[in-house]
Amino acid sequence: MSPEFRARLQTLVMDHKALLSRRNIVDESWQNGLFKRYRYPVLTAAHTPLTWRLDLNEKTNPYLIERQGINATFNAGAIELDGKIHLMVRVEGYDRKSFFAVAESESPVDGFRFWDYPVTMPETDDPDTNVYDMRLTRHQDGWIYGLFCTERKDRSRMNDLSAATAQCGIARTRDLRNWERLPDLKSRSPQQRNVVLHPEFVKGKYAFYTRPQDDFIDAGSGGGIGWALCDDITNAVIEEEKIIDRRYYHTIKESKNGQGPHPIRTKKGWLHVAHGVRGCAAGLRYVLYAFLSDLKDPSKVTHAPAGYLIAPEGDERIGDVSNVVFCNGMVARKDGSMYIYYASSDTRLHVAETSVDRMLDYVMNTPSDPMRSAKCVELRNKLIEKNLKLIEKSDDPLLKACRDL
Amino acid sequence: MSPEFRARLQTLVMDHKALLSRRNIVDESWQNGLFKRYRYPVLTAAHTPLTWRLDLNEKTNPYLIERQGINATFNAGAIELDGKIHLMVRVEGYDRKSFFAVAESESPVDGFRFWDYPVTMPETDDPDTNVYDMRLTRHQDGWIYGLFCTERKDRSRMNDLSAATAQCGIARTRDLRNWERLPDLKSRSPQQRNVVLHPEFVKGKYAFYTRPQDDFIDAGSGGGIGWALCDDITNAVIEEEKIIDRRYYHTIKESKNGQGPHPIRTKKGWLHVAHGVRGCAAGLRYVLYAFLSDLKDPSKVTHAPAGYLIAPEGDERIGDVSNVVFCNGMVARKDGSMYIYYASSDTRLHVAETSVDRMLDYVMNTPSDPMRSAKCVELRNKLIEKNLKLIEKSDDPLLKACRDL
Repeated sequence: MSPEFRARLQTLVMDHKALLSRRNIVDESWQNGLFKRYRYPVLTAAHTPLTWRLDLNEKTNPYLIERQGINATFNAGAIELDGKIHLMVRVEGYDRKSFFAVAESESPVDGFRFWDYPVTMPETDDPDTNVYDMRLTRHQDGWIYGLFCTERKDRSRMNDLSAATAQCGIARTRDLRNWERLPDLKSRSPQQRNVVLHPEFVKGKYAFYTRPQDDFIDAGSGGGIGWALCDDITNAVIEEEKIIDRRYYHTIKESKNGQGPHPIRTKKGWLHVAHGVRGCAAGLRYVLYAFLSDLKDPSKVTHAPAGYLIAPEGDERIGDVSNVVFCNGMVARKDGSMYIYYASSDTRLHVAETSVDRMLDYVMNTPSDPMRSAKCVELRNKLIEKNLKLIEKSDDPLLKACRDL
Repeated sequence: MSPEFRARLQTLVMDHKALLSRRNIVDESWQNGLFKRYRYPVLTAAHTPLTWRLDLNEKTNPYLIERQGINATFNAGAIELDGKIHLMVRVEGYDRKSFFAVAESESPVDGFRFWDYPVTMPETDDPDTNVYDMRLTRHQDGWIYGLFCTERKDRSRMNDLSAATAQCGIARTRDLRNWERLPDLKSRSPQQRNVVLHPEFVKGKYAFYTRPQDDFIDAGSGGGIGWALCDDITNAVIEEEKIIDRRYYHTIKESKNGQGPHPIRTKKGWLHVAHGVRGCAAGLRYVLYAFLSDLKDPSKVTHAPAGYLIAPEGDERIGDVSNVVFCNGMVARKDGSMYIYYASSDTRLHVAETSVDRMLDYVMNTPSDPMRSAKCVELRNKLIEKNLKLIEKSDDPLLKACRDL
């Protein structure tokens, strides 16, 4: 090794080691009582192994150039296996193609390391141009399923280079290493994205959250998050999609919405995290929201708090596709803690830390959306009035100080 | 001078002096081995002379108001003259009209000063509404040519105030001060942008890189970077445009692409820097990429590394038109060093420092785009396998540390 090559490699190794061993810190400036934000992302492009990006051989790479750059690590599925958090990360190369890779940690908030190799995902007879946004479901049938978006050129519109079709790819595994690819989901909708497998059989069938859409980008007449049952996941055909969570005018989910990871079973119902999209002068804005559905019938929404759960904040606002938070992975642990892995602006991955109890308190006690300004003021006035009465009756100077600052 | 006027003028002068004499510093957080980023832009709106913006006469400007503000300094052509770097800067006033101005420095990375006056560019019989993005070419014929975009109202769509036509303006000079305007380029394409003059005659003719497009914004059926020859540059008419670098589905140049500055002659071929554009939920994303073409036939691409060379990072991501890097000027010096002047987000100008040898190593040894996810993983696995074998065979603890952190 030449001294120059060694010096540069040493810098790279030391920087990488420092990044990977950095402990995460709660961001104390974020105080909404519901979840904790952390100062650092849990994964960035710089977290991917040096062996994935550099040719380490001085003979073939004398300048130690990054031969195959990684652009971003984001939208990750999540699952707890053997007491460790495993993230199924969407990794994107400089070439704009995404693939899947597993990063693992004992801690849910830092210390994630990628396995030596990315996932080799088998293809169907119709090769995927791009694959992304995997939802992991450990199903009652014993398999771990990965449902993801597979994107291919729209061959009916060859002259429009941006015209693509999105469908739901399905694969299963026991260990996240060896994957059996099943046929893509077939539905009556021209396109599908954000399809998620429910973890339990419902009426003896496999149950899917879907997101029918007319076009690659626009949901079009696709009315929201759908729900469909099917007998055979090895040849998944769904006949009817029932819309269980509609898009709605002048809400955070006006343009599009989609199920996040599969919902978590709680005593009070199935706890969902989803994303909602609206258009604005700077493009689309993606936020996360939560709702609860019936334990016996997961397609029946029982509690739908108004507005968003997580919106982009600070540095999260900016990235390759700014103004986006997206979640396709969360983990509820035995101790009641809950970790929501959300990506910001299609660039890096963060974690929000909460508990199942806090989330239930939130979804069950936050008023639903009254859908217009005057009603929102009424709703807020009720809250204010309740508080002012409490303050008036109280002798506690701390409570008094909530009003008289 | 009133004390207030003097005090304010003093502040302005001191700030401006500090800005113009600020030395640039390599950004050590950027370590890709191929090029260096610098901490500061080389030019911002604040670098333009005070005389361009303020009326310095207290009688006519008692508040010392900025009378004619400058909004941005970006997309600059570049040329070395008498050992100094000359940038042909796109300067934009508060009024959204761009014009050209020369900034000059001994150093390629800092110290740029604008000349006393902007360039007075003669017009054709059809006045330009806006001119921008000049590519400078010192041609074999002895002239320095400036090819730029000239934009005028689309008179066939008067009711649509945004409807414009883009064409290639052509002018020539010996000294960057006195310009002879030639007739605009005529081609069969309804619109043209990003037209660049090749520095040498090819088959005895002037050779142009073109970018045919159907519409003002959309490239439409315009397939990519074109190539055309013409006999007479004083009345430049091109009959046929051959597409030499196509746009392609699901790449960084899916929506549009365009030649940057004229390519640099190297031992291994003509070294090109170009821009690629894709659409996303937040609008268009512009990145830079590089390729090599044949020395004898510059229209024949010989090496095309996958993905991007430079994408917006950090503060570069945000500006008047966010998520954009653009380059129409670069300089290769006698000592082998190479400077790529790239603007970020249509707002300010940066420099990336590299060498011709490093760039050749990059374009010749980076794999080309296999165009789909599974093939990209195969390609990456080859790199990883090669690295892991090297690490296994080696006793060097530094190499070992690349895997075992």
